[in-house]
Amino acid sequence: MKLAITDLRVKITNTFQESGFNTVDTARTVDYLLWAEMSNNKTQGLIKMTGTEPLQNIKPQYEPKVERDTQLSQLIDGGANPAPVAASLGMEVAIQKAKEHGVGIVGVKNTFSSNGAQAYYAEQIATQDLIGIVCSRSPASTAGFGSFDPIFGTNPLGYAFPTEDDPFVFDMATSAMTFYGLVLAKAKNEQIPKNMAIDHNGNPTTDPTSAMSGALLPFDHSYKGSGLGMMVEMLAGPLLNGAWVDNKTFKEEWGSLFIAIDPNLLIDTVDFKRNASRMIRDILIARKADGVSEIRLPGIRSSQSRKAAEESGYVDVDDAILNQLGYS
Amino acid sequence: MKLAITDLRVKITNTFQESGFNTVDTARTVDYLLWAEMSNNKTQGLIKMTGTEPLQNIKPQYEPKVERDTQLSQLIDGGANPAPVAASLGMEVAIQKAKEHGVGIVGVKNTFSSNGAQAYYAEQIATQDLIGIVCSRSPASTAGFGSFDPIFGTNPLGYAFPTEDDPFVFDMATSAMTFYGLVLAKAKNEQIPKNMAIDHNGNPTTDPTSAMSGALLPFDHSYKGSGLGMMVEMLAGPLLNGAWVDNKTFKEEWGSLFIAIDPNLLIDTVDFKRNASRMIRDILIARKADGVSEIRLPGIRSSQSRKAAEESGYVDVDDAILNQLGYS
Repeated sequence: MKLAITDLRVKITNTFQESGFNTVDTARTVDYLLWAEMSNNKTQGLIKMTGTEPLQNIKPQYEPKVERDTQLSQLIDGGANPAPVAASLGMEVAIQKAKEHGVGIVGVKNTFSSNGAQAYYAEQIATQDLIGIVCSRSPASTAGFGSFDPIFGTNPLGYAFPTEDDPFVFDMATSAMTFYGLVLAKAKNEQIPKNMAIDHNGNPTTDPTSAMSGALLPFDHSYKGSGLGMMVEMLAGPLLNGAWVDNKTFKEEWGSLFIAIDPNLLIDTVDFKRNASRMIRDILIARKADGVSEIRLPGIRSSQSRKAAEESGYVDVDDAILNQLGYS
Repeated sequence: MKLAITDLRVKITNTFQESGFNTVDTARTVDYLLWAEMSNNKTQGLIKMTGTEPLQNIKPQYEPKVERDTQLSQLIDGGANPAPVAASLGMEVAIQKAKEHGVGIVGVKNTFSSNGAQAYYAEQIATQDLIGIVCSRSPASTAGFGSFDPIFGTNPLGYAFPTEDDPFVFDMATSAMTFYGLVLAKAKNEQIPKNMAIDHNGNPTTDPTSAMSGALLPFDHSYKGSGLGMMVEMLAGPLLNGAWVDNKTFKEEWGSLFIAIDPNLLIDTVDFKRNASRMIRDILIARKADGVSEIRLPGIRSSQSRKAAEESGYVDVDDAILNQLGYS
């Protein structure tokens, strides 16, 4: 059902505040959820307020704690707060440090569940005229390196660049599909596509339950995808004194690294934004392959969906979710 | 033929010095070439001293010029110096800034030809107990985004982490194969593997000459590989006021970004190195897939090859190259 975004924002805000979240944490979470919903990234949106562990019902262990703080960096223990709360805090600190000193590198560990779409955090950084690079590790679900055991998480990475128009935003899982995609397929009694996962004994499977007890595959089925998954694991696990190569618990093992870089470190920001816009234009005027009517930049579908929602003022939300939340 | 590394070093040093390179630039180039040769990365090694534009014959336009310098960063115009000279300088500056201030971000543009193996520069950074991330753009050779025109370079990226043992080092092209691989196949009158390239009209080809006038494919044939190629392009082109989406000249269009990060920004370096070593151990003890006798980390073959060469004191070099250089 299509809902007015302003009305939906009020409803979600009420839900989180009634559950005991303070104003700032509520705003952080609502911003994130609406962004994902408007991006048509439905596995990262309001669905997180449903199921067996709805986001609004999470009781954090403690307020996020700063474990290390330097001019350029901060390490935050998320206190098992919902990931959008702790991750947004990390992103905000990275922005602030980069604005003051040119670079901000902030690690956030021990959040409740995944911070979701890396693109969200990267985009917020880029709207401040900074380059944003964000990556997250998650409990082991993805095979690699000649093994069929889950070793890495789905370990997404995202980036965003400021341009003369909206930031250019991109993110991807380093696994062939997201873990939430498995959860969703299982809930809907659907099969997953071929070449996405293997079962516990390393045999190909299209059954989401078998894939959950087995492993997802790296996105490109090669050492390159595994090498990128490993980079994310290292930056968002060992570098934060967090967890790695582990799937014992699906609660406190998430970790994220937020990197904000002021382009002004290398060239004037106005020049970088002009160059970035021209580069995008130069990509879009290339010859089109057969059957391609328009060259689509990676990540552009979700940007366009978000823009369309903002312009219309409405966002389309799954009826079942609205019913469950009592919003309809 | 197997040559003593010490003898080979003297021979290459003489060649570069006789061509007019100063001591520092010669050492930089020799270190790089021997590293690639010992890594068994033959497309990046001594072969670069042969062919129509041997590295030792390159006449730079001018000494590398610093265009911007901050505590954390530097932008260097390479003056069309051979890439290993200018890139090594950039890497050294990144290391120095990261050691002093926690982060070093150095862009190097306008080098002669490719700086080659990102792993080399990343590894040098990691031997200084810093995290190294390196990426390079090159003249457009790789299609993406629903086009069959070459848009991005082969745009490699590499990283290295310090551990309790040797650094862990990885690099990859974001294209399905390297451009030098095409050059080599053409020289040897060989076909390239399937699914690597398309011709000028977008049809699959295994002919290296057709691929050169057409385009390489992204490494995973999907938007993810293109999105990563685009990230590299943006960081090593527009961010340096360099070139992008362009293959008009194969001389002055290379650009590289060197990022060095002190892990101590987040946790004690000794803890990071311990965690990194443990993570690698945890990967290596996973169950092995059928037919796999040993789990091989990505990039490990070249590390092992390098180590074996160092331990034996000898490196195997192609006889044709040695003959051409008059080294045999």
